Amino acid sequence: MTYTAPTTEQLFVLNHIARIDAMAAHDRFAAATPDMVEAIVTGIGDFAAEVYAPLNRVGDTQNPKWQDGKVTMPPGFKDAYRQFVEAGWGSIDGPGAYGGQDLPFTLAAVVIEALGSANMGFSLCSILTPGAIHALMAYGTEEQRQTWLPKLVTGEWNGTMNLTEPAAGSDVGALRSTAEKITEGPNAGLYKIRGQKIFITFGEHDLTDNIVHLVLARTPGAPEGTRGISLFLVPKYRLDAQGRPTISNGVRCASIEHKLGIHASPTAVMIYGEDEDCLGEIVGEEMGGMRAMFVMMNNARLMIGCQGIQIGERATQQATRFAAERIQSSLAGSPDRTPVPIDRHPDVRRMLWRMRAQTEAARALVYYAAAQTDFGKLGDEAAAMRAEILIPLAKAHATDIGCEVASLGIQVHGGMGFIEETGAAQHYRDARIAPIYEGTNGIQAADLVGRKLGMAGGDLIRGLIDDIAHGAGEEFPELAQLAETCRAVTDWMANAPVPDRLAGSSPYLTMLATATCGWLMALQHIAAKAALEDGTGDTAFLEAKVASTRFYLQQIVPAAAGLAPAALAGDAALPALA
Amino acid sequence: MTYTAPTTEQLFVLNHIARIDAMAAHDRFAAATPDMVEAIVTGIGDFAAEVYAPLNRVGDTQNPKWQDGKVTMPPGFKDAYRQFVEAGWGSIDGPGAYGGQDLPFTLAAVVIEALGSANMGFSLCSILTPGAIHALMAYGTEEQRQTWLPKLVTGEWNGTMNLTEPAAGSDVGALRSTAEKITEGPNAGLYKIRGQKIFITFGEHDLTDNIVHLVLARTPGAPEGTRGISLFLVPKYRLDAQGRPTISNGVRCASIEHKLGIHASPTAVMIYGEDEDCLGEIVGEEMGGMRAMFVMMNNARLMIGCQGIQIGERATQQATRFAAERIQSSLAGSPDRTPVPIDRHPDVRRMLWRMRAQTEAARALVYYAAAQTDFGKLGDEAAAMRAEILIPLAKAHATDIGCEVASLGIQVHGGMGFIEETGAAQHYRDARIAPIYEGTNGIQAADLVGRKLGMAGGDLIRGLIDDIAHGAGEEFPELAQLAETCRAVTDWMANAPVPDRLAGSSPYLTMLATATCGWLMALQHIAAKAALEDGTGDTAFLEAKVASTRFYLQQIVPAAAGLAPAALAGDAALPALA
Repeated sequence: MTYTAPTTEQLFVLNHIARIDAMAAHDRFAAATPDMVEAIVTGIGDFAAEVYAPLNRVGDTQNPKWQDGKVTMPPGFKDAYRQFVEAGWGSIDGPGAYGGQDLPFTLAAVVIEALGSANMGFSLCSILTPGAIHALMAYGTEEQRQTWLPKLVTGEWNGTMNLTEPAAGSDVGALRSTAEKITEGPNAGLYKIRGQKIFITFGEHDLTDNIVHLVLARTPGAPEGTRGISLFLVPKYRLDAQGRPTISNGVRCASIEHKLGIHASPTAVMIYGEDEDCLGEIVGEEMGGMRAMFVMMNNARLMIGCQGIQIGERATQQATRFAAERIQSSLAGSPDRTPVPIDRHPDVRRMLWRMRAQTEAARALVYYAAAQTDFGKLGDEAAAMRAEILIPLAKAHATDIGCEVASLGIQVHGGMGFIEETGAAQHYRDARIAPIYEGTNGIQAADLVGRKLGMAGGDLIRGLIDDIAHGAGEEFPELAQLAETCRAVTDWMANAPVPDRLAGSSPYLTMLATATCGWLMALQHIAAKAALEDGTGDTAFLEAKVASTRFYLQQIVPAAAGLAPAALAGDAALPALA
Repeated sequence: MTYTAPTTEQLFVLNHIARIDAMAAHDRFAAATPDMVEAIVTGIGDFAAEVYAPLNRVGDTQNPKWQDGKVTMPPGFKDAYRQFVEAGWGSIDGPGAYGGQDLPFTLAAVVIEALGSANMGFSLCSILTPGAIHALMAYGTEEQRQTWLPKLVTGEWNGTMNLTEPAAGSDVGALRSTAEKITEGPNAGLYKIRGQKIFITFGEHDLTDNIVHLVLARTPGAPEGTRGISLFLVPKYRLDAQGRPTISNGVRCASIEHKLGIHASPTAVMIYGEDEDCLGEIVGEEMGGMRAMFVMMNNARLMIGCQGIQIGERATQQATRFAAERIQSSLAGSPDRTPVPIDRHPDVRRMLWRMRAQTEAARALVYYAAAQTDFGKLGDEAAAMRAEILIPLAKAHATDIGCEVASLGIQVHGGMGFIEETGAAQHYRDARIAPIYEGTNGIQAADLVGRKLGMAGGDLIRGLIDDIAHGAGEEFPELAQLAETCRAVTDWMANAPVPDRLAGSSPYLTMLATATCGWLMALQHIAAKAALEDGTGDTAFLEAKVASTRFYLQQIVPAAAGLAPAALAGDAALPALA
């Protein structure tokens, strides 16, 4: 077994940080009983370990193959995906009216965490479908929902997000794809879609018999920029009278990319409406595309943040196992000359604890953010607003953590870590995409110091800092100090010109995210100690939790305060490049 | 042209940090006149850009091929290597008596920097040969020198270092290869070598007609551990009466590794004396192997530190060029809606300045360390002792920088950075080996808080900190503060039990290296400002130097002080892993 789901840890964070019990107290999430939550967490853990994990290296070495516009997945993937659909793992947070289980999004994140730890590239097939579901629930017509949701909810069909074009990357508003409304004939009301999209995750594959593309395009005469963008549902195959996907729709995969990592995930160049008509249905209103896309993006950004946990967990497990088994050198400073497992050498232990603490921090941050979106759905407006801040923090910081932990994982292995067959290198390659897609981490930082900082006159971030400072109290002085440093930088940011804010946005995001993680780790530290005193729970787990949270608060939190000068440096510190 | 050597920068650091002029004032390095230095720096820059750089992606994608024990390099490599030899680039710091140019090692480091920026994997062929030369100069007999040095000095033959075995990685003393002295017959005095070595860089290839392996092995009855190790010179082919390498010597390459990066460098599993006798000459005395090997290792460690510069420079150039050309989004906060090159967006500029500042810091650190070894050869004992501290700092910190800068390079490219054809991903993969080999960075940190901290009663490190604090003066308060933090941690380290030192060794190394870099950047800041005032030198370069050094001092130096709690945490903060 190459991966074991950390179910005790996941349940602990669900209970103490996500407060899944408080969600279950509401009718909407009444299905999330403790038994159900435990069944999901352990069930998906077993499934991921048994079905997805064995295909991780297969996907890395036997890439999906493109030929004549069609992509064939590596051996074993189709069967594994069928099992995923049949077991109902795709429908966790899907709407009950369309075949879903009406459970919190937070639990869907746990499902994706396990699948992605087992096989990050493969799991991407299931990350964007929920976004398509949310967009249809928010902006689709009832007919669209009845037509498309049942198969999206089960995962029988997957959803994609089509934003990027060669000249429109981070600047989505620059896109040039077009959509022209058909005004007469049998297809009246539909739109003819034309354009090229790049970097489309699972834009083409053979796992499902249809693919539902959500495509941003511009209607004739629409204004420049994001204001003129509309969202369209464009199926790979249109449905016949029996609802079967049998009608070719002018959607072609022109190629797939040769990438550093996530080889199991075909990244497609998609051409719409080149050789034959490509018809799409509008989702929501014309020019309402960005609003609808934000529904998908918020969801997807948390799912990408989750990839930081995925790789962190996988890399930590692999390095921990290796370090326990690899015998090398006697302990320095000890008279005993017997070689020991390398996890007894202090610097290796430091790396392993850092990997563990950072991964736990990322998990707490992402679960907490996901939970706030769930509480928002339950009518808790403060939670919904807090989620707005947490999403850029979770996306950017958790993915940075994924890269750092994967790199430490290589280091723990020494020379073996650089050999591809060991597997540590794949995590390092896979992890590196997450700070880039779904809005680069720089875009997240810009979102934080732009839109998010301004919300509610800056009180959203100040409210978060108040909670952190309160949580730190007198027991966690490093955290209290970081909170005050964050407060000072926030006040400066709130009054600084935009270029100055942006110049310090990334260090500021790291500081604020670390403070938030520090708070969530402090809460777990207290909870773990209390459980140890009560004699409830798994003692070994709780003792490790006390140690990892202490490590985070004592070693990682104070380092973040050192980023303040960079956050405050201002635009003038960054002259134009020669 | 994919790489342009930063000759103005290299000469600036050679003059202001390495003090190459002071070396040339001594007879031994009298050849290092300003004209000669400039000719070398510009000459190797052109050669690297024209001959080695075009093969960088070739080496990455068309790996060396192993078949029947022989390794064939990719197309173009053999011819390029021939040009390297013919131009005399291998012999810069080689001993004049054996065909070398008797120039400072610091200049050899500049040569390797350019070659490695152009093609890191390929340049590895030339990194270990100087170590073999130094070992023979220090411990070889005159006959050995006359036999082996002339071809090693030119690079017609390359040298390798054979330490590692499957069960002897960081713990060199655990090695099991054997060497048995032949007492009679024509080969009396030679040794029969038997054993398996792994991770042997350029252990087998077709660039040269002989390979000179320096092999650590154990003589019969030798004590356990490093005390019982001897060093042997084991050629791929023994020499016939005419000195030609024609006699097979029982050296076999069993396989080469499939690695994350540096694909152009064949990493060999070597088998000695399996099917036929393998004969080696002892270098120095029996049981004197580790002492001789340290001569090679110190040299090699600086050359590996140099790889941090190499990748940092290459990645920075590529990202800077991309960011100047890629147009995306208008400037936030500006009324002008025209899209701009992304290097005008503050967070991208922050990444580019960070890449530049970190690379310059790594270069200053490595050149400074190399220069201290040269001054040591000129009889400056203080310089020789300072080099002892600087070598672990330069090896570990410069290679960490290489990885960080390569990762930022991907980030600047956005989605394109993750596509292999872009080239940024190769730098990221190549860079990752450097913190591992030639003693992992954890081993460097252990060396720092173990052997090096204890030298001269701790005064070596205190002397360095005194110089840093003096350099900081009142003009660079962040540096002054970091120096004092380093002093406090050093004092704590000096009195702490070994496990506590080791627990904080890596953060401590990073702090001390950053402080050292801060000092060297401050010196350059002052020199650049003075040159600007005098109106001497390249204004654009000098203004960029002022900005990059200020960035380093204001943004990177204060963050390092935040590592003190981790350095001081002690072993008890790192309980045994479950």
